[in-house]
Amino acid sequence: MNSTATQDRVLNDAEIAELAQQLRVDAVRAAAAAGSGHPTSSMSAAELIAVLLARHLHYDFDDPKNPGNDHLILSKGHASPLLYAAYVAAGAVTEEELLTTYRKFGSRLEGHPTPKLPWVDVATGSLGQGLPIGAGVALSAKRLDDLPFRTWVLCGDSELAEGSIWEAFEMAGVEGLDNLTAILDINRLGQRGPTRHGWDLDAYARRIEAFGWHVEEIDGHDVAAVDEAMKTARRTRGKPTAIIARTRKGRGVAAVEDQEGFHGKPLPDADAAVSELGGVRHLRVHVQPPEQTPRRQFGGDPTAQLPRYDLGDQVATRNAFGDALTVLGTRREDVVVLDGEVGDSTKAQEFAKEHPERYIECFIAEQQLIATAVGTGVCERLPYASTFAAFLTRAHDFLRMAAISRSDIKVVGSHAGVAIGEDGPSQMALEDLAMMRTLHGSTVLYPCDANQTARLVTALAGSPGIGYLRTTRGATPVIYGPDEEFPVGGCKVLRSSPEDQVTLIGAGVTLHEALAAADQLVADGTRARVIDLYSVKPVDAQELRAAAETTGRFVVVEDHHPEGGLADAVLESFCNGHPMPLLTRLAVHTMPGSATPDQQLHAAGINADAIAAAARKLVNTPLTTVSSR
Amino acid sequence: MNSTATQDRVLNDAEIAELAQQLRVDAVRAAAAAGSGHPTSSMSAAELIAVLLARHLHYDFDDPKNPGNDHLILSKGHASPLLYAAYVAAGAVTEEELLTTYRKFGSRLEGHPTPKLPWVDVATGSLGQGLPIGAGVALSAKRLDDLPFRTWVLCGDSELAEGSIWEAFEMAGVEGLDNLTAILDINRLGQRGPTRHGWDLDAYARRIEAFGWHVEEIDGHDVAAVDEAMKTARRTRGKPTAIIARTRKGRGVAAVEDQEGFHGKPLPDADAAVSELGGVRHLRVHVQPPEQTPRRQFGGDPTAQLPRYDLGDQVATRNAFGDALTVLGTRREDVVVLDGEVGDSTKAQEFAKEHPERYIECFIAEQQLIATAVGTGVCERLPYASTFAAFLTRAHDFLRMAAISRSDIKVVGSHAGVAIGEDGPSQMALEDLAMMRTLHGSTVLYPCDANQTARLVTALAGSPGIGYLRTTRGATPVIYGPDEEFPVGGCKVLRSSPEDQVTLIGAGVTLHEALAAADQLVADGTRARVIDLYSVKPVDAQELRAAAETTGRFVVVEDHHPEGGLADAVLESFCNGHPMPLLTRLAVHTMPGSATPDQQLHAAGINADAIAAAARKLVNTPLTTVSSR
Repeated sequence: MNSTATQDRVLNDAEIAELAQQLRVDAVRAAAAAGSGHPTSSMSAAELIAVLLARHLHYDFDDPKNPGNDHLILSKGHASPLLYAAYVAAGAVTEEELLTTYRKFGSRLEGHPTPKLPWVDVATGSLGQGLPIGAGVALSAKRLDDLPFRTWVLCGDSELAEGSIWEAFEMAGVEGLDNLTAILDINRLGQRGPTRHGWDLDAYARRIEAFGWHVEEIDGHDVAAVDEAMKTARRTRGKPTAIIARTRKGRGVAAVEDQEGFHGKPLPDADAAVSELGGVRHLRVHVQPPEQTPRRQFGGDPTAQLPRYDLGDQVATRNAFGDALTVLGTRREDVVVLDGEVGDSTKAQEFAKEHPERYIECFIAEQQLIATAVGTGVCERLPYASTFAAFLTRAHDFLRMAAISRSDIKVVGSHAGVAIGEDGPSQMALEDLAMMRTLHGSTVLYPCDANQTARLVTALAGSPGIGYLRTTRGATPVIYGPDEEFPVGGCKVLRSSPEDQVTLIGAGVTLHEALAAADQLVADGTRARVIDLYSVKPVDAQELRAAAETTGRFVVVEDHHPEGGLADAVLESFCNGHPMPLLTRLAVHTMPGSATPDQQLHAAGINADAIAAAARKLVNTPLTTVSSR
Repeated sequence: MNSTATQDRVLNDAEIAELAQQLRVDAVRAAAAAGSGHPTSSMSAAELIAVLLARHLHYDFDDPKNPGNDHLILSKGHASPLLYAAYVAAGAVTEEELLTTYRKFGSRLEGHPTPKLPWVDVATGSLGQGLPIGAGVALSAKRLDDLPFRTWVLCGDSELAEGSIWEAFEMAGVEGLDNLTAILDINRLGQRGPTRHGWDLDAYARRIEAFGWHVEEIDGHDVAAVDEAMKTARRTRGKPTAIIARTRKGRGVAAVEDQEGFHGKPLPDADAAVSELGGVRHLRVHVQPPEQTPRRQFGGDPTAQLPRYDLGDQVATRNAFGDALTVLGTRREDVVVLDGEVGDSTKAQEFAKEHPERYIECFIAEQQLIATAVGTGVCERLPYASTFAAFLTRAHDFLRMAAISRSDIKVVGSHAGVAIGEDGPSQMALEDLAMMRTLHGSTVLYPCDANQTARLVTALAGSPGIGYLRTTRGATPVIYGPDEEFPVGGCKVLRSSPEDQVTLIGAGVTLHEALAAADQLVADGTRARVIDLYSVKPVDAQELRAAAETTGRFVVVEDHHPEGGLADAVLESFCNGHPMPLLTRLAVHTMPGSATPDQQLHAAGINADAIAAAARKLVNTPLTTVSSR
C-alpha cells in the first residue's frame, strides 16, 4: 500500500489499522523531535481518529470555511500530535512541517491546537471545553441554520470529571442534538494516575444515558467496532451519541502501554517505539468532502432605528441594552442572543419577543452559555451572551480560552457593583472589570446612560474579539442625546475648563456621582474636570494625558473592588514612562452587605460626597516630582 | 398550640404543617417589610425545612461551633426568608429582628445568607455552590474526622443545570457519602419561567441515580412523605440520598402559587396572603441538639524543619512547594491537601507520600476542588488546594463566594506565565494574579526561589482569608539563604544604593531577569535598584515609596497579562495621592504560542535584555511634574 493506492477510495479495515499505526508513529516522532508533547494520549485514540477520517468525516481541507464541513473538535487538546498526524495523513500538513516545527517557536503546530490552523475551530487544552463548544456548534447548526454537517468531539476520560462536560451532556440531550457525536477515549489513565472510573465503561454509559444520549460501548482499538459505532451515531435520530471506547494509553508500545508515569512526555526510546509500531508509513487518506452547501448571507434591515431616550429621563442601562439589542437583531440577522435564565433581569428577553428563533435559553449553566456563544461564532453567527455580571466569573476559563480561540463573542453582564442594593454581595459584580480587561484582545465598555448604552451595544458588534458591556440594575438619568456618538477607545469630557484643578473620572453609576461631586466643588470654588470613561478597554490615553497635564490630579471612582478596574485602566495610559498625575482611587474596599443602593454607594465611599471630599484633599496636595533626580 | 406547648418535644404531623405555614407567613412578612426578597421561592420549601427542623436536624443553636452539629446549607440562597423564618421558629432570631432588619443596612439578615450569622457555614446566592460545599463538608466529616453529623443541603431546581452540581453528585456518589442529603425543591419555575425539566422528577432521579445516589421522589408538601424520605436518608448506608420533592412555588397563596412573574419580589398583597395562610403564628420548635462531641485538638510537630536549599542550586518553586507543604503537614495536623489530578505537576503529591490520609484527590473538577477546600475549612481544617494556575479560573466564582464566606483556604497555582514554554497559552496562567488580587481580603504571594517558597508556604497558613501562592514550572536559582524571612506584606531590596537611578521590580521568574538586567546596566554605568515583590498583595508600600523617592523611575516586569498584575499592585501604593514614579510596564501583551521558556520571555519582552532596554530609555526621560499647577 502506498499513498497513491489509498487516494480517492475508501480504505478497508486492514488499511485503516495501518493508518492508525501511522498516526501513532507520527505522534511518537513529532513528540521525540519536539522533546515534549503527549504521544501516549495520542496513541490510545489512533483507531478512533483513523476510522473517523477514512469513513465518516466530511471535510474539505482546501475550503475550511465551507459551511457544509463537519466539525472535529479535539476536546482532549493535549493529544495534538494525533490531530496533526491526521492532518499529515489527509495531506493538509507535510510530514516535514510536523517533524520540524511541532511545539517550536512560531509554529502553527502548537502544543495544544489553536485556530492558527485553518482547520481548528477553537483552541482546546483546558479540559472539559471541547464538548460544550461542540454542543454549541451542533445546536447552532440544528436550531439556527438547519445545516447538514455533523460535529465530532474527541474527549478524554479525565475531563469527564469537569462539570462543564455535564452541562454539555444536558443541553445536547434535552435539545436532541443527533448531529453531535462525542467520542470518549477511555484509556483509564489521567495525568497522575488512574481516573475515577478506570475502564468501567458502564459507569460512564449510565450517566450519559441518563442525560438523554444514545451510548455505544466499544473496544476502541477494534476498527470494525469503531466503524459500526460511528455508523450508528450517524443513523441515530433525536439523540446525540456517545461512543464510549475502551482504549489503552500508549497502545502499541509495550514500554509505555497502559503504564503510569508516561503522560505528557516523549517516549523513552522513540526509535524502538517506531520499529515496534511497524516503522514509518506514508499513507494518505482521502477525506470525503461535504456536499455542496451554499455560503450563507445574513440579511437584515440596516436602517432600523436605535431606541432614543429623552434627556433627563430615568432609564436603567440594562433596559436600554434589551431595547438596542432587539434593534441590532433587526439590523443584522447573524445576531443571536443567549441567556443564562435571567433574561427578565438582564432584559435580554426583549430580543426574544422580536426574534424568538434567534434566542437561546441556556439555563443556569454559565460555562455552557459561553461555550454555546463560541459555538455559534464558529458557525459565523454574532452571539451576545448575557447574565448577571457576577456570574460570568463562572465562565472565566471559557472566556480565557475564547480569547485564545480569537472568538468574536459579545458578553453582557448586568447588576454591576454595590449599586444593585439589597441582594447583597453574592449578586454584586465587583471583579468583572478586572476579569474582562485581563482577557487578551478584549474590549470593555461601561455605559452610564440609556442612549450611550444603545450606541455601545452596536459598537461592540463592530469590535472584533471578546467584547464586554457592563450594565446597571437601577435607573440612571439620561445625560446624552440620542445622536451622540461613542467610539470604542474614546471618552467624554463632560466638564472642562483651562482652570480645572482636578479631574474626576467615573463610568456607569459613578459617573453620575462624579457629576454631582463636581457641582459640590463648584460651590467651594474648585473647578473639576469630569470624564466619562465608558471605554474601559481600550482607554482614551490621549484625553487622559491631556487631563493630567492640565489638572495634575485625578480622582477615579468605581463600583468595583480596587484591583483591576477603572483606576488601573486609567493608569495604563501613563505606564510607558509618561508623567503620572496624583491619583486618589475610590473603590469598594470593604465587603458589602444588604442596603439600599444609596446606602451602598455611601458605605463604599464612592458617592458624590466621598468624591468631593477626596477631590478637596487632593487639590491641597502639592504637585512635586517624586524624586529630585 | 402555643410556643410553650411545642417546646422540648417532637411535633406531630399536623403541628409541623402549622410550622410550615408559619415559615411561609414569616417569609411573606419579611419580604413585605423589606420591600424585596424571594418569598415564593421560600414558600415551596416550607414543609421540607419544617420537617427537617422538627424531626431530623441535630443542632445546638447556642453552640454553633459544636463539632457534632449537623450542617444545613441553603444552596438556593435566595430563599433566605425561609432560613431566617426557621431561625425564628428555633428561637435563634427574634421575630422583631426578622421583620425590622431583613435586607436593611447593617443587618446580619442579608438578602442571601452569609456567615455574619453564626449558624451559616458559607455564603450562598451564586447558585450551584451549596451542594459542592456540602459534599466537601460531608467528605471532611467522613474521610478525615469520622464525625457523626449529617449535612443537609437545600437545592433549587434551576441550579441543577450548573455543572458544579454534577461535580458534587459525582464526588459524593463515588465517595459514598451517606452522611449527605440533598433536598431538591422542584418547584418547576426558575427566575424567568419554567425550568428545563419542570415537574419531571424522574428526569432528575435518572441522572442522580446514575451518579451513584439513592433517590426518593416525593410530594414536598406532604409532611409524612417528607419525614419518611428524611428517615430513609438517615438510614441509607453507602450512598448519599437525594430527596426529589415536587413542590409549588408560592404554595398557599393563590395569587402567586405556581405562577410565573413572581420570582424575587414581595407578594402583591402581603396582608391578604398572611390571612390566606391562616395568619401569624408564634410556634417554637425544639431542634434536637447533637450528642456530645468533643472538640478536636489538632496536633503536630512544630519543630519539623522546613527544607533547606543551597544558594546557587537550580530548584523549581513548585518542587519547594511540595517539599514545604509536606513539612507543614507534619507541623500541623489540621492541614489537608486537595489536588485537581495534577499533583505530579504541582508537586502537591509529595504531601501524599507522607500524609496520605490528609490528601484528597478531586480529579479534574476545579469547582469541586475549591468547594471541597471550603468544606474542609468549615470543619476547621486548613486546606491547601492546588492545580495549574490557569485552571483556577475555572473556580473563579467559587473563590469569589469563598471570600464572601470569609473562608480560610489556601490556593496554589503552578505553571505560571509564558515561562512554562512549549505547552502554549491554554496552560499558561496570565490572568491569575488579577483574579486572585481582586478577591476581597486575599493574600497573594509569588516566590522566585526555593527557600523563599518554603517560607511563604508556611506564611500563608498564618494569613487569614484566601491565600494564593503562584509557583513556576522551571527551575530557578536559589538566591536566598534558608534562614531568610519573608513577611507577608514585605519585599526584598536586592540591589540598592543612594545613587540608584531606576528601580527594577519583578517577582518569580522575572525577578531573576531583573537581576540580570541590573548587571547589564552596571556595565553602562547605570545604577539600578532591584526589588523582589514576592508579596503581591499586600504590597510593601513603604519600600516602594522609598524607591520612588530615590530613583523616581520604575520598570515593573511580570509574566502575566498587563492588566491586574504586578504593575497594578505597585501602583496601588501611590493611589492615595502619593507622588508617582515614572513607570514602564513590561508584561505579556501578545498571545503566546509554543516556544522554549527563554524564547517565550524574549518574545513577550520580559527578559533581561528588554528590562535593561526599558530602564535605559526611562533614565533618559526627565522627571517633571505632570502639570504646572
